[in-house]
Amino acid sequence: MSTLTLREPKYQELKNRLSQIRDLEAAASVLNWDQTTYMPTGGAYARGRQIATLKEFAHEKFTDPAIGQLLEDLRPYENSLSYDSTEASLIRITRRDYDRAVRVPSEFMAKFCQHQAVSYEAWVKAKSVKDFSSVQPYLERTLDLSRELASFFPYQHIADPLIDFADEGMTVSILRPLFSQLRQKLLPIVEAITSAPLIEDSCLYQHYPKQHQLNFGRTVIERIGYDFQRGRQDETPHPFTSSFSIGDVRITTRVYEENFTEALFSTVHEVGHALYEQGIALELEGTPLAEGTSSGIHESQSRLWENMVGRSRGFWECFYPQLQGIFLKQLSRTSISEFYRAINRVAKSCIRTDADEVTYNLHVMIRFDLELAMLEGELAVSDLPDAWNERYKTDLGIVPADDSEGVMQDVHWYGEMIGGMFQGYTLGNLIAPQIYEAAVKFDPEITVAIERGNFTLLHKWLKQNIYQYGRKYTANELIRRVTGADLSIDPFINYIQDKYSEIYKIKLATYATKN
Amino acid sequence: MSTLTLREPKYQELKNRLSQIRDLEAAASVLNWDQTTYMPTGGAYARGRQIATLKEFAHEKFTDPAIGQLLEDLRPYENSLSYDSTEASLIRITRRDYDRAVRVPSEFMAKFCQHQAVSYEAWVKAKSVKDFSSVQPYLERTLDLSRELASFFPYQHIADPLIDFADEGMTVSILRPLFSQLRQKLLPIVEAITSAPLIEDSCLYQHYPKQHQLNFGRTVIERIGYDFQRGRQDETPHPFTSSFSIGDVRITTRVYEENFTEALFSTVHEVGHALYEQGIALELEGTPLAEGTSSGIHESQSRLWENMVGRSRGFWECFYPQLQGIFLKQLSRTSISEFYRAINRVAKSCIRTDADEVTYNLHVMIRFDLELAMLEGELAVSDLPDAWNERYKTDLGIVPADDSEGVMQDVHWYGEMIGGMFQGYTLGNLIAPQIYEAAVKFDPEITVAIERGNFTLLHKWLKQNIYQYGRKYTANELIRRVTGADLSIDPFINYIQDKYSEIYKIKLATYATKN
Repeated sequence: MSTLTLREPKYQELKNRLSQIRDLEAAASVLNWDQTTYMPTGGAYARGRQIATLKEFAHEKFTDPAIGQLLEDLRPYENSLSYDSTEASLIRITRRDYDRAVRVPSEFMAKFCQHQAVSYEAWVKAKSVKDFSSVQPYLERTLDLSRELASFFPYQHIADPLIDFADEGMTVSILRPLFSQLRQKLLPIVEAITSAPLIEDSCLYQHYPKQHQLNFGRTVIERIGYDFQRGRQDETPHPFTSSFSIGDVRITTRVYEENFTEALFSTVHEVGHALYEQGIALELEGTPLAEGTSSGIHESQSRLWENMVGRSRGFWECFYPQLQGIFLKQLSRTSISEFYRAINRVAKSCIRTDADEVTYNLHVMIRFDLELAMLEGELAVSDLPDAWNERYKTDLGIVPADDSEGVMQDVHWYGEMIGGMFQGYTLGNLIAPQIYEAAVKFDPEITVAIERGNFTLLHKWLKQNIYQYGRKYTANELIRRVTGADLSIDPFINYIQDKYSEIYKIKLATYATKN
Repeated sequence: MSTLTLREPKYQELKNRLSQIRDLEAAASVLNWDQTTYMPTGGAYARGRQIATLKEFAHEKFTDPAIGQLLEDLRPYENSLSYDSTEASLIRITRRDYDRAVRVPSEFMAKFCQHQAVSYEAWVKAKSVKDFSSVQPYLERTLDLSRELASFFPYQHIADPLIDFADEGMTVSILRPLFSQLRQKLLPIVEAITSAPLIEDSCLYQHYPKQHQLNFGRTVIERIGYDFQRGRQDETPHPFTSSFSIGDVRITTRVYEENFTEALFSTVHEVGHALYEQGIALELEGTPLAEGTSSGIHESQSRLWENMVGRSRGFWECFYPQLQGIFLKQLSRTSISEFYRAINRVAKSCIRTDADEVTYNLHVMIRFDLELAMLEGELAVSDLPDAWNERYKTDLGIVPADDSEGVMQDVHWYGEMIGGMFQGYTLGNLIAPQIYEAAVKFDPEITVAIERGNFTLLHKWLKQNIYQYGRKYTANELIRRVTGADLSIDPFINYIQDKYSEIYKIKLATYATKN
């Protein structure tokens, strides 16, 4: 390929331009990471401006007509190459991004970003005083702007372009029936599990000193395969993963001393995201391909490591003795089985981010449906809190005590937009078991190896089949390549049924299939 | 002024453009700070590229002919305003920067930056194996490029444009006689002091645990006036100060557990730089005025706090009891007088950065003279080590054991350029006492207040007379405004004579004036 590459200076020019644009974006990410981790409060004012400037220049550079021209000029070159080649993929994905970027006027983006910032501030205040009405006008404007954003694109359903930003190729016409089918299967499973005796999990809510939690977490994620030579871990109020290059992918963690699960599982979750970004092929560095391919695939990797690995019996066969050694006082009287059941307790609750893996998707689908209803004009923002509470009553049998635990709990609608914000979470939950099934089918040793503390088999398989490609393939292409099938809810339902039948000693299959 | 400002949209446009350019520069600084403090090693490759891109875009945006046009269009507006106004100053300083920036072709800058990077790498290696010959070819190229850089400007002496970058208004014809006069006065002082019995300073070279050193340092710099709401302190191999905005000015520190002086005095030194940047008037935020005005003035502020305050008897009247309390084992048998003499011990040595304030300028002037000789073509790079050692023998009576302690000790020539690199250090040492004299003349309470641990009087005076202006005035303008006189070596010589006559119980005035 290198001779062809040399023969095509326009390809090099495109790559050079894209690399510089990526540098601006990476700089914005570093500034954002710094803002969240170490920046003194006095830096806040200028920092907002600095990040905005970097993003504006990145956008300006990317929407330069010269890029459009290069992409046109490179069509014959692209067509002469295989679809799977890095060169063809780079041109194809860049063209897709470019077409998307030039549709949205810069003035609109500036206006929207500015609104997002003030809306976010209003939400922080409104949430703290539990007053939805004070943020309502901002949310109404967000809805207008979200609709306007969608209007720059052709669509069948107005949410489609917004969903497409995060999960390319997904549309309401695909997701609505898929989610509806999932909900129908999930509701009776949740009902059956929550009718069974509640699992005792008080062992998790003792005093777990912070430094010991951090040390144990570090042992775990190093063993899993997180590369500290190409990453680091810091503490922030909300955990996140941030990639500045393939050689620098950082995670953050928050620790609650009275709740053992928070730090560990959110760390493993973020490491799932980070392994993906660290595992991208080095030849993609500095190109738009050097990222996870979609919100759903990204989330599938974090959930795979967090839940399917981190909350598996085999994982704790490996780590529980060590954990007991560190927290002797807290755990010496808790057997591995009790601990395993405790970390997999299912309960109906109000807060999505605290939800177990069985009820989690119900939380997500409530938000997805409400987003669509708002975008369709079927639901007014003023009626949103009631609609929210109504659905929580129907699906989870509880009503939030107030709007801060209800409609205002997630930042997404208030800091970003309405539309495309939530489907990725459930897609991730569905894709994870579908991919994991394929991995285990390829090499059944994977699960046995995990019990022995060997995560390399799984990590290598994921790198080879998912991580290395970055954005070369869309989510749908990737799922088909890896599993030989299209996205399906069956692996997830099977996973849940098998795991929780055993944990709760009930036959979930009966419930799931009778619907 | 606000009505005039409103009436002139071109001024606003200029400000907006400059603010965005500053954002790019600030981003580059954040990325550099991160690289030095927290970045994992895997991030290095992409980080170099990211910083280069930011600087390139900043340069590209600044040399945009539209800025030149705005500056032209704003001439009448500038002329209608007072010289001291922020608006007139902004236009004046920006024009100066712009004229300087557009003279240097972008291709040259790119070439030079690239060379600086490889030369720096070569120096790191060469220094570690004490082999000047391996870095010599790089240094020869640096000399060529430094001369080429100078050639884009009109000059009397080829070093003038290079000096002007850091210390505007300074030229070889001003500095050569000034430094020569200084050297003539200093040599006999150094001779006299070093002929006196050596001060016992072993109390400083005991084991001082790191965390205690950091805690004490933090107490000191908070008391001095460093604002941790608008800054922070981290550890790095080489201490530096980095400003990302007036609200975010950070310092770094290195700690040697077997040498008490290193961490504390370098911290106070960096805080001197940081107080300057934190003290700039907020209305200058986001403009090119929001910086220290010259290398010499900047260094004067760090040296003023490090030496004139931090190494003063009054300072330790305040802090020594506290220090003894923290390091009881180390210092209980050392009186304040012994301690004060120890931290002011004068000795001939090879390393500039470790030098006391009396011999320090001799180190600097050696480098200054050698820079000029190389630029003039009077000294070949291959003869540099010999010339270096020769001058050390003449001026300091010692010869470095090898080139890593000699000609390769400072990064400047290897990582930046030849010319304009060193005069700022001595200018700072001269300006500091000249400014301090003016401060104490204005309010004699300043020195008494320091003994009582009150640094506010001095800090406020400096803010009012130096810091707030940023780059509004050049160094020469500022010195004249503050002291009513031009730069002079007398305050420095008087300061040294008074202080060290007392410490060494000898009459230095005799030596100084007889030359």
